[in-house]
Amino acid sequence: MTLDPVSDAFVTVLAAELPPQTLRPVEARFLEEPRGRFRGDGGVLALPRTVEEVATILRACGRARVGVVPYGGGTGLVGGQVMPGTARPLVLSLERMNRVRAVHPLENVIVAEAGVILADLQSAAEAEDRLFPLSLGSEGSARIGGNLSTNAGGVNVLRYGNARDLCLGLEAVLPNGEIWNGLTRLRKDNTGYDLRNLLIGAEGTLGVITAAALKLFARPASVGTALMVVRDPSAALELLALARAEAGEGVSAFELIHRQGLEFVAEHLPDTRQPISPAPEWMVLVELGLSRGADNALETVFAAGLEAGLVSDGVIAQSDQQRAAFWRLREAIPEANKIVGSVASHDISLPLGALAGFIEEATGAVRALGPFRVNCFGHLGDGNLHFNVFPQDGHDRSEYDDLRHDVSRRVHDLVMALGGSFSAEHGVGRLKVEDLERYGDPAKLKAMRAIKQALDPQGIMNPGAVLAPG
Amino acid sequence: MTLDPVSDAFVTVLAAELPPQTLRPVEARFLEEPRGRFRGDGGVLALPRTVEEVATILRACGRARVGVVPYGGGTGLVGGQVMPGTARPLVLSLERMNRVRAVHPLENVIVAEAGVILADLQSAAEAEDRLFPLSLGSEGSARIGGNLSTNAGGVNVLRYGNARDLCLGLEAVLPNGEIWNGLTRLRKDNTGYDLRNLLIGAEGTLGVITAAALKLFARPASVGTALMVVRDPSAALELLALARAEAGEGVSAFELIHRQGLEFVAEHLPDTRQPISPAPEWMVLVELGLSRGADNALETVFAAGLEAGLVSDGVIAQSDQQRAAFWRLREAIPEANKIVGSVASHDISLPLGALAGFIEEATGAVRALGPFRVNCFGHLGDGNLHFNVFPQDGHDRSEYDDLRHDVSRRVHDLVMALGGSFSAEHGVGRLKVEDLERYGDPAKLKAMRAIKQALDPQGIMNPGAVLAPG
Repeated sequence: MTLDPVSDAFVTVLAAELPPQTLRPVEARFLEEPRGRFRGDGGVLALPRTVEEVATILRACGRARVGVVPYGGGTGLVGGQVMPGTARPLVLSLERMNRVRAVHPLENVIVAEAGVILADLQSAAEAEDRLFPLSLGSEGSARIGGNLSTNAGGVNVLRYGNARDLCLGLEAVLPNGEIWNGLTRLRKDNTGYDLRNLLIGAEGTLGVITAAALKLFARPASVGTALMVVRDPSAALELLALARAEAGEGVSAFELIHRQGLEFVAEHLPDTRQPISPAPEWMVLVELGLSRGADNALETVFAAGLEAGLVSDGVIAQSDQQRAAFWRLREAIPEANKIVGSVASHDISLPLGALAGFIEEATGAVRALGPFRVNCFGHLGDGNLHFNVFPQDGHDRSEYDDLRHDVSRRVHDLVMALGGSFSAEHGVGRLKVEDLERYGDPAKLKAMRAIKQALDPQGIMNPGAVLAPG
Repeated sequence: MTLDPVSDAFVTVLAAELPPQTLRPVEARFLEEPRGRFRGDGGVLALPRTVEEVATILRACGRARVGVVPYGGGTGLVGGQVMPGTARPLVLSLERMNRVRAVHPLENVIVAEAGVILADLQSAAEAEDRLFPLSLGSEGSARIGGNLSTNAGGVNVLRYGNARDLCLGLEAVLPNGEIWNGLTRLRKDNTGYDLRNLLIGAEGTLGVITAAALKLFARPASVGTALMVVRDPSAALELLALARAEAGEGVSAFELIHRQGLEFVAEHLPDTRQPISPAPEWMVLVELGLSRGADNALETVFAAGLEAGLVSDGVIAQSDQQRAAFWRLREAIPEANKIVGSVASHDISLPLGALAGFIEEATGAVRALGPFRVNCFGHLGDGNLHFNVFPQDGHDRSEYDDLRHDVSRRVHDLVMALGGSFSAEHGVGRLKVEDLERYGDPAKLKAMRAIKQALDPQGIMNPGAVLAPG
């Protein structure tokens, strides 16, 4: 079934059903995405303020067979938020649905609309002395609806889980324009199919999330953060086991950092403090959050790691300022990567046991294809690495456009052979539709198509994302 | 679309595709369920040993339009495992698929077939010095496939989540007979719709779970267990907040116990030790699991509770034997309930803030209908109560058959008005199909029917469970 581009007639009719200024010409910022691989070609922008307005919009799009591209903060890295081609869609931005509807500190629940910026949600929790633990580089502009639609990950998944794990209930508009009021604050509710988790991670292809009830947590009274130089990724994993033996679920973050990333930061973001110099080949950023004694626990972990020959150097943050500097270094790595410009980026996950071997083998495989630099870093505790491939110094990524596909194929083939995933936290979007076709389980793909057809028979929701048009 | 009962011809043809003895006459135990509300009427029993055999069976049932009732340990309390009526189904028991396929202690993952008994799974984890935290009264006979299909809860949900939260990956056979190999050990995998969570909690209506990759945890080195007498449910909730302030995520269990339950136990299971005498109106069973000092932490919590006027008495287990006795008392409550025989049982959840008010109001509402005794107990920390209604001493539940419906309606109406759930952890099964129709969100129900139709167009999977036949 083909879709129609938005027409003047469509806009006129729909505008009459909505408050003034809800529909507008689409601005350029809604047609671009951070990595510059996809570009939209016009359409109309809708800025609803209520779930009822979203429902009105979806019903109209269904009647007119107009595609709908839900838009959060626009920070996604796989092109899920930008629809190229001439079937110009309605871009549905949730940015005006940006109210925190309620905070229930005693229940540890916050209810927020889809357009709330992640950092604002964190602040609203903090104002009640609670923690909303989802945390990622783009939290200053990402919106919670997008975080949920893509099941975002980030640096605290190790302890608190993905966006999926933080969600108790949803309000959403389904592709037929019906409102699902599933905004429960319950911890347990076994009344039928798990529509919540079906919408989470569906990247806007099965409906539009308009609000969510989310879990809050106690803010750990004692937080300790350290950088530790490790022998290699395998030693880092052993160190993680030591940290867990000492602090249990108190290990909040365990991030792997490679020298290549530190060198990119030193070159392109020279104001960034580098607490350990010269840059070691491998180090980890460890954070513990306990009711007391986090720094002592870090010292115990470091001593145990030293004795076991896993770590050789380290520094524990002595102030909030120093802790912020450690995290600033971690966050500078993807920023520096972006400045350098990768030939290919891979957001992969592996069973923990396969991780160390993969890094070695994949680096070799990529270097066999060309004179590349590899920056491998990320959420080691989750088995989630960003394995990014860069040209040699003085060269531009555009010189290797013809190799990009081969590089990614090699990396992903290896990941899949080891029982891993070609998209750990970024999703499929439009970038990895082919990968999903290639690597996805056939029975699952068939079931996905059946579900898509059942809930969105006209295919209006985020056309071309996740699943290739049928 | 109507289904056909199993015929001799069907059995003959299918038997030829399977190893000898895979199909058998169905034994009586597969036609009964614990509460005696549903009874099967024959059919044939299938005892496959492999996922391929399950696929063969489902394909044959699809061709012949024979209903399939997946069967785990048979411990479900809502009739999901027993199909009444004359359209005699194939009962698919997973009991011979009972291998632990692999344990990965360093990854904290165990891979088990659906037929593994929950207690055996706990033991397999313990043998590797790990914890598989799902724990519930029927763990000695419940099987993990059933636990996942019903998204079982139990006493450790507070800390570790429901069955859903413990599952990383699934192997399953879909209604069309295709095998989905989703048995990943990954912590992060954003590659398409969340089929795993769709099957979990679908109670066998969307396919058959044949194996799962499950999360393991470190066994807390220091476990402390206490009984504390609380003023009322509201004080219990404040005490929970104190416990969390002291022990963070280390609060593993927080169970509410009412005097009525203790009296039932004293009368019907008189060998059960009752550490606090005379029986208090309300008490809680608290368990902490920490890396060290759990008993000290319990003492701190008790002292703080005493000072705040929340608790008046308490006892901390001084040995493993004493701890086991505390838990034995907790587990004896549903056993005693069963002996007394309830007029109506309710497995409800509420927002924590609404809990205390509900108990008072619902008890009043029920007593207005008849001379009933109420035993309200359960997983307070999850907002999940078992609100069970019994006849006066010397009377039998059968005397109140005509009131059962009204009692449940009153209780559930109140639960729903407070934003709760009429099935917190037991599921819908066949018992609560009407409740789901009545209380379920219309848009969600429509989406559920569309998904069911898409994945199981013939309606062969557990007919009559969860959704009324269309």
